[in-house]
Amino acid sequence: MPLDEASLIRALTAAHPAPPGTLGIGDDCCVWTPKGPTCLSVDAIAEGRHFTADADPRLVGRKAAAAALSDLAAMGAVPVGAAVSLSCPGRWDAAAIMAGLSAELARHACPLLGGDTTGADSLVVSVTVWGEGDPAAQGRLLRRDGGKPGDLLVVSGTLGGSLRSGRHLTPEPRLAEGRWLARHGFVHALMDLSDGLAADAPKLAEASGCGCLLLPEQVPVHDDVPQISDTVTSAMCDGEDYELLVAVEASQWPTLQLAWPFDEPLSVIGWLLPEAGAWMEDRQQRRVPLVMRGYEHRDG
Amino acid sequence: MPLDEASLIRALTAAHPAPPGTLGIGDDCCVWTPKGPTCLSVDAIAEGRHFTADADPRLVGRKAAAAALSDLAAMGAVPVGAAVSLSCPGRWDAAAIMAGLSAELARHACPLLGGDTTGADSLVVSVTVWGEGDPAAQGRLLRRDGGKPGDLLVVSGTLGGSLRSGRHLTPEPRLAEGRWLARHGFVHALMDLSDGLAADAPKLAEASGCGCLLLPEQVPVHDDVPQISDTVTSAMCDGEDYELLVAVEASQWPTLQLAWPFDEPLSVIGWLLPEAGAWMEDRQQRRVPLVMRGYEHRDG
Repeated sequence: MPLDEASLIRALTAAHPAPPGTLGIGDDCCVWTPKGPTCLSVDAIAEGRHFTADADPRLVGRKAAAAALSDLAAMGAVPVGAAVSLSCPGRWDAAAIMAGLSAELARHACPLLGGDTTGADSLVVSVTVWGEGDPAAQGRLLRRDGGKPGDLLVVSGTLGGSLRSGRHLTPEPRLAEGRWLARHGFVHALMDLSDGLAADAPKLAEASGCGCLLLPEQVPVHDDVPQISDTVTSAMCDGEDYELLVAVEASQWPTLQLAWPFDEPLSVIGWLLPEAGAWMEDRQQRRVPLVMRGYEHRDG
Repeated sequence: MPLDEASLIRALTAAHPAPPGTLGIGDDCCVWTPKGPTCLSVDAIAEGRHFTADADPRLVGRKAAAAALSDLAAMGAVPVGAAVSLSCPGRWDAAAIMAGLSAELARHACPLLGGDTTGADSLVVSVTVWGEGDPAAQGRLLRRDGGKPGDLLVVSGTLGGSLRSGRHLTPEPRLAEGRWLARHGFVHALMDLSDGLAADAPKLAEASGCGCLLLPEQVPVHDDVPQISDTVTSAMCDGEDYELLVAVEASQWPTLQLAWPFDEPLSVIGWLLPEAGAWMEDRQQRRVPLVMRGYEHRDG
């Protein structure tokens, strides 16, 4: 279906009336009135890198929205708005992509307030989302750089197998979980897992001026990881988990476990070290350099 | 040059220290504290549509930034931040694209606070920019929908010839002009010209619940338009002018002309009508339907 920008904009404008006091799709910019510190992320997914050329266009749109919203979850933020940049070849069904994207945003009460479309030789869906701290958390936004030496590293849910199983197209942004975590002062730092724990945990540690020690045997493995494979490596390296990685004051871990109101399990998978460097415990519980690498969306 | 996201991010983070009180590149989101109503736009340019495969990568980056900033100019806004989504094949020099983009943002005092990079089969540079109303204009943002019947339609600068001359790669976002216009209550509506006056003026009119009558013979033609061509049609339809289209209370036009402190000329090129529809005056000063079309970045 060729991309008819004017009719796509008309359809989106009708489907996404701007919230009161907000100017949505159709002007040079959208306009809203922020209530406090605001966070924003841009997340792009590309044909051949994050989905295949034969993927369901609705799921492509859904994934683009969910991956972007996961960045808001990773700050403990409440979504305020989204804008999409759709670069779409004629062979893709732009309306179906936008339908999947719109539905996912709506499911998380995030208004679609703006966007741009252009033709292109390959499909790229880039989604900008912005949000604010939850008033119940006094507007607090959780960054990566708040971790302290001795903090436990905790993950939500289970990891691995996302690409092989196709589950990577339907990630579940942990928005409610992120907001809840932001309300607790003993949660020091937060990020979402997109490149795999082995790649992402060192990023949180480095941002916090710490090192990290990971416990591969403690990493919760998703059912989608085949039992015949190296399940631990899958869980640490597959990527596209979109679960949360939390740095928690160690003494408060029992409190966190008791109070946690969500279905996904929480698992301690390591801790932050005072000195720089990324380490793991091997099966003999010796501390060895972290040699596993996360998933990289390699360039062609 | 293959796209190495980690080293690109390191270079960008070093080149773009976040302003005080702001969290820039490197976390799941950037964070800033808005001072009032905020406007945001996403603008994408794609290989083969907005630039050719042999274009200078620095100019591609520059154009992406300038085209996005032009949307802030079109609201009379002051830039607050930008985030880039770069979908880049290995044959393009990602660092040179980002250098051109960064320099253009810096020229307009707009910090680069976030972004995402991915491999792709063709180059798309999508730039999100956001800004606030100027305190000197009491934070006023100029929308398209404020025009009133009888308002004069005025353009800044000269139009046409942008694509043929290559000038489309170096547009000048009219940020200072937009901010100045927002300070004057007799300016009712504003937009920037990207698809050509013949396409864009009816959009402003429609958003304002009006029609429009354009005066092709009054449209200021850029020097880049060859004299042997139909210069008026070029000026009205070529597109990518990135000049401003202003709806001004007719009685205040002399005041505006006298006070205008900028080099670009202002020209009256039509007015808003109480009834819907797009019209133009032919050479015999008869009112005829506006049949000219603007430039469309067609899909392949």
